[in-house]
Amino acid sequence: MNPKTIPGYDYASPTIARSPVTLADLASLKVSVGLTSEDERYLQMAGSVLAGQTHQIVQHWRSGIIAGIPNLARHSQAPEGQPLPAYLAASSLRFEQWILDTCLLPYDQDWLNYQHEIALRHTSLRKNQTDHVQSTPYVPLRDILAFLAVMNQTIRPYLAAKNHTPEEVDRMHSAWCKSMQLQIALWAAPYSDAKLALNEW
Amino acid sequence: MNPKTIPGYDYASPTIARSPVTLADLASLKVSVGLTSEDERYLQMAGSVLAGQTHQIVQHWRSGIIAGIPNLARHSQAPEGQPLPAYLAASSLRFEQWILDTCLLPYDQDWLNYQHEIALRHTSLRKNQTDHVQSTPYVPLRDILAFLAVMNQTIRPYLAAKNHTPEEVDRMHSAWCKSMQLQIALWAAPYSDAKLALNEW
Repeated sequence: MNPKTIPGYDYASPTIARSPVTLADLASLKVSVGLTSEDERYLQMAGSVLAGQTHQIVQHWRSGIIAGIPNLARHSQAPEGQPLPAYLAASSLRFEQWILDTCLLPYDQDWLNYQHEIALRHTSLRKNQTDHVQSTPYVPLRDILAFLAVMNQTIRPYLAAKNHTPEEVDRMHSAWCKSMQLQIALWAAPYSDAKLALNEW
Repeated sequence: MNPKTIPGYDYASPTIARSPVTLADLASLKVSVGLTSEDERYLQMAGSVLAGQTHQIVQHWRSGIIAGIPNLARHSQAPEGQPLPAYLAASSLRFEQWILDTCLLPYDQDWLNYQHEIALRHTSLRKNQTDHVQSTPYVPLRDILAFLAVMNQTIRPYLAAKNHTPEEVDRMHSAWCKSMQLQIALWAAPYSDAKLALNEW
């Protein structure tokens, strides 16, 4: 899918704000998670493996897991629990693209800016606005942190689906998990910023 | 080591506060990370495997990794970078015990209260107080979130060190990673609470 046709996918768009996180902060975070240039190569490999599987993966997460956890499912629903199919569809397309972006894009200023935008879209500052819907006012930080465990675990068989060696799968998975930890560190920023989203744990 | 002799290890002590997180919140978080009763059995297995290795693991993390990352090492040092051996020693003993507690203790009200205490001891509200030291005023939330990737990756060989099958090692590791994600969700709480630690990302 051409990412330019995904509703609300504003990567590198002049309409999104510059991240308050600097490239120097990002470099420090990469050191703290242990993300090396070797990991970056395995992320590229993961991207080539996951391309073509992203729809299935997001369906697995959303229909297979989140739909069965009311506490998480409500964030894609209207306040009384009614489905919002257009919201779910558009955000799932962005979710799919995010898997590829995680693996294939350079972690540069544009990436950092969109990380900030993704973070804000989970908080009361920006949730629901992109898709003009009424749903939960924000996704609590704890739900994001917690669900990451599920994404890290369930991605593994998809990484193993293209006949790579167990060692290659391990290395792709390790690089993926480091990137996830880096990203949730970035996404946590507005939740702990007195000028942004507070008390949305 | 008898945990009662560890300086500042206040598990289930009447001196620590009740967690603002409820047992119902905890139950929800367990569902979100996917922590099942089967995982709880594998955590017990992990506890029996890691017992006797905790000193080595914490040395690996602290001397082998954190010491080489100035941005992280400073949280155990005096403001000008001088070592604080007594602080490092006491907090390392607590770190070792935390590995065992993660695996072996029930996640009940006492556990929840001590999770809250651990969280606060990383923030400006309580850091340095337990050991009466001068060090960095707090550990930024992003450093905690980021370093978890390293702990998750490096724990694996220790889980494999006692001749369990690859499947058992996988299951212990998966249960460990879920518990980690659950715990950082809990530790993030005071960082996003307007009444507690703000702007400490």
